[in-house]
Amino acid sequence: MKNSKHLKTNILKENEEIDDLQINGEKIIQMKEGFRYGIDAVLLSNFVKIKNKNQKLIDFGTGNGIIPLIIAAKSDIMEIHGIEIQEKIADMAARSVILNDFQDRIKIHNMDIKNIKQHFNKESFDIVTANPPYMPGEKLQAENDMIRISRNEVLVNLENIMENASYLLKSRAKMYMVHRPSRLAEIFYKAKKYLLEPKKVIMVHPRLNKAPNMVLIEFMKNGREEIKFYPPLYIHEEDGKYQEKIIKIYSSKTLKSDLYSL
Amino acid sequence: MKNSKHLKTNILKENEEIDDLQINGEKIIQMKEGFRYGIDAVLLSNFVKIKNKNQKLIDFGTGNGIIPLIIAAKSDIMEIHGIEIQEKIADMAARSVILNDFQDRIKIHNMDIKNIKQHFNKESFDIVTANPPYMPGEKLQAENDMIRISRNEVLVNLENIMENASYLLKSRAKMYMVHRPSRLAEIFYKAKKYLLEPKKVIMVHPRLNKAPNMVLIEFMKNGREEIKFYPPLYIHEEDGKYQEKIIKIYSSKTLKSDLYSL
Repeated sequence: MKNSKHLKTNILKENEEIDDLQINGEKIIQMKEGFRYGIDAVLLSNFVKIKNKNQKLIDFGTGNGIIPLIIAAKSDIMEIHGIEIQEKIADMAARSVILNDFQDRIKIHNMDIKNIKQHFNKESFDIVTANPPYMPGEKLQAENDMIRISRNEVLVNLENIMENASYLLKSRAKMYMVHRPSRLAEIFYKAKKYLLEPKKVIMVHPRLNKAPNMVLIEFMKNGREEIKFYPPLYIHEEDGKYQEKIIKIYSSKTLKSDLYSL
Repeated sequence: MKNSKHLKTNILKENEEIDDLQINGEKIIQMKEGFRYGIDAVLLSNFVKIKNKNQKLIDFGTGNGIIPLIIAAKSDIMEIHGIEIQEKIADMAARSVILNDFQDRIKIHNMDIKNIKQHFNKESFDIVTANPPYMPGEKLQAENDMIRISRNEVLVNLENIMENASYLLKSRAKMYMVHRPSRLAEIFYKAKKYLLEPKKVIMVHPRLNKAPNMVLIEFMKNGREEIKFYPPLYIHEEDGKYQEKIIKIYSSKTLKSDLYSL
């Protein structure tokens, strides 16, 4: 039923299409033009370590639900929440959940992260994931508001994210974030302010010998003050092809938090 | 006179030897056994940018004076201060200054960084350099006290360094530091606390594809919140030889702050 022609035509709205996630036949609804998921979301999802299926995970600013969908497809975790402030995008994510029959495992909430304390109990989660807007304030003017809200800190900033992640996480529980290296000082500063200690860092470079343009960070609430840096990850070979490790991360049937350390 | 046999024999104490810095015939006195300078001090010295010869530079925890000696040898800066808490090591650094005829440009002070405010005026420096103890507290027990004080935060910690660097630096002036990536969150946190904004970062890896084990950071007092990450630097080729860039940095007749970005 999942992939029936009937469902596909009813589940799509204007300017939307269904893309194959290349994992066990899972699909995602995306806009044909506009905000689409990127490699950052894929790397972040695969960086997450699920210890057992009863852990509770929440994804901040879930967008079209890419992170919950990958994690559900590649693990046995039973309870994932995705928070998305933009109603149209949250609706798209909720339809992707239905498309993949993940209704029992993934709940999409059309909600502002800043209101989390009214909806969830303190220290009730084991994992927070966040692929937040990279740009501060109003600096970059993207093509339309939907994209602008996803890329710029118009509605949510690092302070909001750290404060609310710290509220939701149990002691010693983890947050996983992908962001820009240019923001790293502010990220570490705000994280520590809310007792989220950076524990693992992977710098992601477009190519070997190029400056990093992404950073993957694992934080532990109330963790000890010491970071383990992993070997750098790079995306493309000199000839422009994806590096072998990136292909492995994409195509793996399970999450690959271990692969980064190889 | 500099390299006369007579001077060499009188200027050395027990367990000391004179090593060639490989820059314009400059020399440094080191212990035969015990604390000797490392590649971290060489990389840090070369990372420093001197804008004009009238800038004032101070090196925190100068040890045997390696950083002032390299900077004096490779630039025309006229006023360098080196602070060293251990009397015997400060004395060795002062003798290296004489050995190289740098008495007019380098002053070695046997002083605790924590007492800096009593000896220097606020906002009187353009550049601070620091190659501080890497290990927190008393964790690592090195072979003897002289080494332990250089490697562990027994007598000085990141808080002391950031507070006193911020006191000494003019607004928009720079601090250059080399440290361990494992301490990066704490470094950024303490730096920002004292208005020292990380502006440039280079991760240094023992080999390509290995996790970084050093980090070079340029801070700007009252700088804007944004880091520029440079391409990673790695020390050794696969065959164990120094990478070409490292050889260039060592052998260059001038400081190589630009080389890191190539």
